[in-house]
Amino acid sequence: MPAQIQLSECSYGKTSVRLVKVERYGGRPEMKDLTVAIQAFGTFASAYADGDNRLVLPTDTMKNTVYALAREAPIDEIEKFGMRLAHHFLGRNSHLTRVRVSISESIWQKLGSNGTPKDSFQLSGPERRTLIVDSNRSGSSIEAGIKDLFVLKTSRSSFADFLKDEYTTLKETQDRLLSLRVNARWSYKAFGQDEETPWTQIRDTLLDVFAAHDSRSVQHTLFAMGEAVLERFACVEEIKLSMANRHCLLVDLTPFKLENPSEVFVPVEEPSGLIEAVLKRSSP
Amino acid sequence: MPAQIQLSECSYGKTSVRLVKVERYGGRPEMKDLTVAIQAFGTFASAYADGDNRLVLPTDTMKNTVYALAREAPIDEIEKFGMRLAHHFLGRNSHLTRVRVSISESIWQKLGSNGTPKDSFQLSGPERRTLIVDSNRSGSSIEAGIKDLFVLKTSRSSFADFLKDEYTTLKETQDRLLSLRVNARWSYKAFGQDEETPWTQIRDTLLDVFAAHDSRSVQHTLFAMGEAVLERFACVEEIKLSMANRHCLLVDLTPFKLENPSEVFVPVEEPSGLIEAVLKRSSP
Amino acid sequence: MPAQIQLSECSYGKTSVRLVKVERYGGRPEMKDLTVAIQAFGTFASAYADGDNRLVLPTDTMKNTVYALAREAPIDEIEKFGMRLAHHFLGRNSHLTRVRVSISESIWQKLGSNGTPKDSFQLSGPERRTLIVDSNRSGSSIEAGIKDLFVLKTSRSSFADFLKDEYTTLKETQDRLLSLRVNARWSYKAFGQDEETPWTQIRDTLLDVFAAHDSRSVQHTLFAMGEAVLERFACVEEIKLSMANRHCLLVDLTPFKLENPSEVFVPVEEPSGLIEAVLKRSSP
Amino acid sequence: MPAQIQLSECSYGKTSVRLVKVERYGGRPEMKDLTVAIQAFGTFASAYADGDNRLVLPTDTMKNTVYALAREAPIDEIEKFGMRLAHHFLGRNSHLTRVRVSISESIWQKLGSNGTPKDSFQLSGPERRTLIVDSNRSGSSIEAGIKDLFVLKTSRSSFADFLKDEYTTLKETQDRLLSLRVNARWSYKAFGQDEETPWTQIRDTLLDVFAAHDSRSVQHTLFAMGEAVLERFACVEEIKLSMANRHCLLVDLTPFKLENPSEVFVPVEEPSGLIEAVLKRSSP
Repeated sequence: MPAQIQLSECSYGKTSVRLVKVERYGGRPEMKDLTVAIQAFGTFASAYADGDNRLVLPTDTMKNTVYALAREAPIDEIEKFGMRLAHHFLGRNSHLTRVRVSISESIWQKLGSNGTPKDSFQLSGPERRTLIVDSNRSGSSIEAGIKDLFVLKTSRSSFADFLKDEYTTLKETQDRLLSLRVNARWSYKAFGQDEETPWTQIRDTLLDVFAAHDSRSVQHTLFAMGEAVLERFACVEEIKLSMANRHCLLVDLTPFKLENPSEVFVPVEEPSGLIEAVLKRSSP
Repeated sequence: MPAQIQLSECSYGKTSVRLVKVERYGGRPEMKDLTVAIQAFGTFASAYADGDNRLVLPTDTMKNTVYALAREAPIDEIEKFGMRLAHHFLGRNSHLTRVRVSISESIWQKLGSNGTPKDSFQLSGPERRTLIVDSNRSGSSIEAGIKDLFVLKTSRSSFADFLKDEYTTLKETQDRLLSLRVNARWSYKAFGQDEETPWTQIRDTLLDVFAAHDSRSVQHTLFAMGEAVLERFACVEEIKLSMANRHCLLVDLTPFKLENPSEVFVPVEEPSGLIEAVLKRSSP
Repeated sequence: MPAQIQLSECSYGKTSVRLVKVERYGGRPEMKDLTVAIQAFGTFASAYADGDNRLVLPTDTMKNTVYALAREAPIDEIEKFGMRLAHHFLGRNSHLTRVRVSISESIWQKLGSNGTPKDSFQLSGPERRTLIVDSNRSGSSIEAGIKDLFVLKTSRSSFADFLKDEYTTLKETQDRLLSLRVNARWSYKAFGQDEETPWTQIRDTLLDVFAAHDSRSVQHTLFAMGEAVLERFACVEEIKLSMANRHCLLVDLTPFKLENPSEVFVPVEEPSGLIEAVLKRSSP
Repeated sequence: MPAQIQLSECSYGKTSVRLVKVERYGGRPEMKDLTVAIQAFGTFASAYADGDNRLVLPTDTMKNTVYALAREAPIDEIEKFGMRLAHHFLGRNSHLTRVRVSISESIWQKLGSNGTPKDSFQLSGPERRTLIVDSNRSGSSIEAGIKDLFVLKTSRSSFADFLKDEYTTLKETQDRLLSLRVNARWSYKAFGQDEETPWTQIRDTLLDVFAAHDSRSVQHTLFAMGEAVLERFACVEEIKLSMANRHCLLVDLTPFKLENPSEVFVPVEEPSGLIEAVLKRSSP
């Protein structure tokens, strides 16, 4: 009996909308390289159940809107562009209850030495700056972030005194390589529209604490990194850190009559540890 | 003031644990090719805040456990193996509150014609069979699924009568190519431990309905596919479908004085539509 | 002294031209899903050295040509489409000395059971059918092939009596898992334009011999597979096989007081063995 | 008649050998992150045809050798490590006629500000430093290189006055975005074992010329970049440049009553232009 079956959730949108915007300020252009996704939630049940498209704004229109809004004003920080997009769709479409805008920004650095025009760029780093705006009729949540920051400690990383059971073969160590792929997302407290967000400073804090920390575990380093962000940036309300431990295994060279005093490692992509946590300030 | 900062969520585990198991029944061996992830939730706060590892079972031990449990009994369906793993970790570790086991199975088909030993296999299809078991002290939820099922309709797919705004340029069409990457996840109602799950039949149902449906939109086809699964399989409680629309654009050949009556298309990977929904039976 | 510097080789073209063609024969449409690359060689030196584009046919035009030629006649086998493309560019452009056309075909199988229209398809298998046509003013070479055929033997695979040196730790084995990613390319002797090529039969031969062979090494199995193709298909002149050995390591379960009689393996993607050879008939 | 079939080429080896080496100089460790491939050529015919492994040094031994040789001496530049590996295999195995060693180096930069130990690193850039050593009994060729250097010009890039045919629709432009993925490989003339190679300076030259050049085509910019390397580095004998043109298409915003004066672009990954050339000095 088909009538018994219903939608309990539904959404649709456009992902991987690629956008390069060049903002030309005389001979010193700036560029943005963004990948945008829009997901819309609302009263679409008849589109699904009956094929009635009258409330379905095409995902192709969502894509066009990204390009048109990119043209109509400077992109500025992705936080502002993401908010403009979310407000646009909610403001124009009363049948939408919620819009989620996700942006991933590739970071380019300017090329050109003395005398050369400063209009060329080089892609720098595997890491991306990220944003998720989730807006409904009551307000918006904003999560800024970093994706794919790869870091490695060559000393001051131990892992010992851990729980053991009958399947434990790992040796305790005072001196292992620690190689992490770090993803971070954080939310800001009430934040002035005209202020610049401290994205670069938060990134630097994560790197500084990673470099300075005497690590007893990934968990331990993760907490120190998140804690420092909350301590130094009063505007950050909460931070989620997700760290993949890309194990670097010490190679056993004894069959070849060689010692290996923490020198030669084989990094393995699979399997990988995955350590996650959300940190926030405790309620007073 | 560091004392103010606390964990609001935390978990850790091992991802991408690769396992091939050969179960040898005389000259007719069977094989399983699984990728397993274990994520543990519990009272680990001191590991993060203080570097106290006494309640941290190493992720390396989790990996070992996957291999040991794979050896101790036949894998059978991944639902059963996933449950065994979840119960193992919860049962042995009173400080854990929750364990999530995710499995992705690659599907191999047996090779060998008349007279040849039937002990060789070929990887068949990009699609994977998936499983997520999420267990806590009150019980378990199980989601079976399919990932990366690629399907394409060459006719009987329209998209018309949709909502338009000032950014809409898409033309209405009665005859477009519909190319989808389908991911599906569904949960079973109380399910006997000894019954075999109807994974293959559900997969066939999804394909059959896709092939038969006169589509007015991805949403419309998605609903028909999910609805059929719920109608035909009383044991399925809920199904989530996530469909990426891999647009196939009709190439404009008029500059070359050629018509293109729905024949020559350029498939584009980016951007992509994303249509999602959860279907279940309505409460009586 | 810039004048001293010259081009010793140059070429340009378009890669990753994606094409889906639907050929409609009443209610039984056929589809082709191709990725095409065109690379042109010729007298372009002034384009490089002086920025003189007068002999540079845009790569965008090459792309357009793929779509126009796909429309003008049935694709038929990719060998024929590839030849049409190569002849087109050489025939129209007297300044070209050589054109290389590469095609990778994704394989789809028809869906639809009794009573359902047969106009929907499912992507089958990770493997691709491939083609390289390399044409110059004297003639053309054609290499047909298969890419990413994944196969696995669960028994009758040994590796023993091998060369050892001071860095050898591998144990001899009579019973290992053999998991290969097979790429093959072969050339045909003079081949009638109207005959269908035996691509499917060659693929079946490769699979049959893999399944039947008692393997002493990847090299040994590779030779048997190539030899069978040359023996069974007089039209094949030469075959190149490239096999990646995706090592499946037997897991040591003795720390857990478990035997592991060739049952539980960890497949590793890195590092990988790579075994290659070209086979042909000896001159009489 | 199997006897008619023979090998015309054969080789085997190990690919994707992952190595991280930490060289510890007090509190200022240095690290190398390499992916190594070894391919051996020689008189192996009986291994293929007869399954006779007596001249087959296992690929597992090749992997072990990479780790042992990495330990026995500092890695120094990858050119030196690659040569040591090639000489090792040729010197120990008289049945080998040729050995090819390929190395891809990921580049990490040191972290740590004032007062912090300088023992942590961050992965910098998608680009890799590469090496191919190809050695036989007569000598060695060495190709150093860069892979995946992504660059983009926002002005001073035109493409006009090109060849047109009936399939040409591309408009001439004086002002397009030029986005390239650059791969480069070059060989050195007789090079002192103790000298440091000018890899960093060659990379800087490629970037500087890209930034300075007024481009009439990818070909034109490619030549200027290669020419500058040959002019500035007498030790470079030949340079091969391979450039993928990642097209950035100007978005047509006229349907939305917006101009788009070279500001809003959609970057497309497929299809892509591919421009290649080898440059060397002309013989006197």
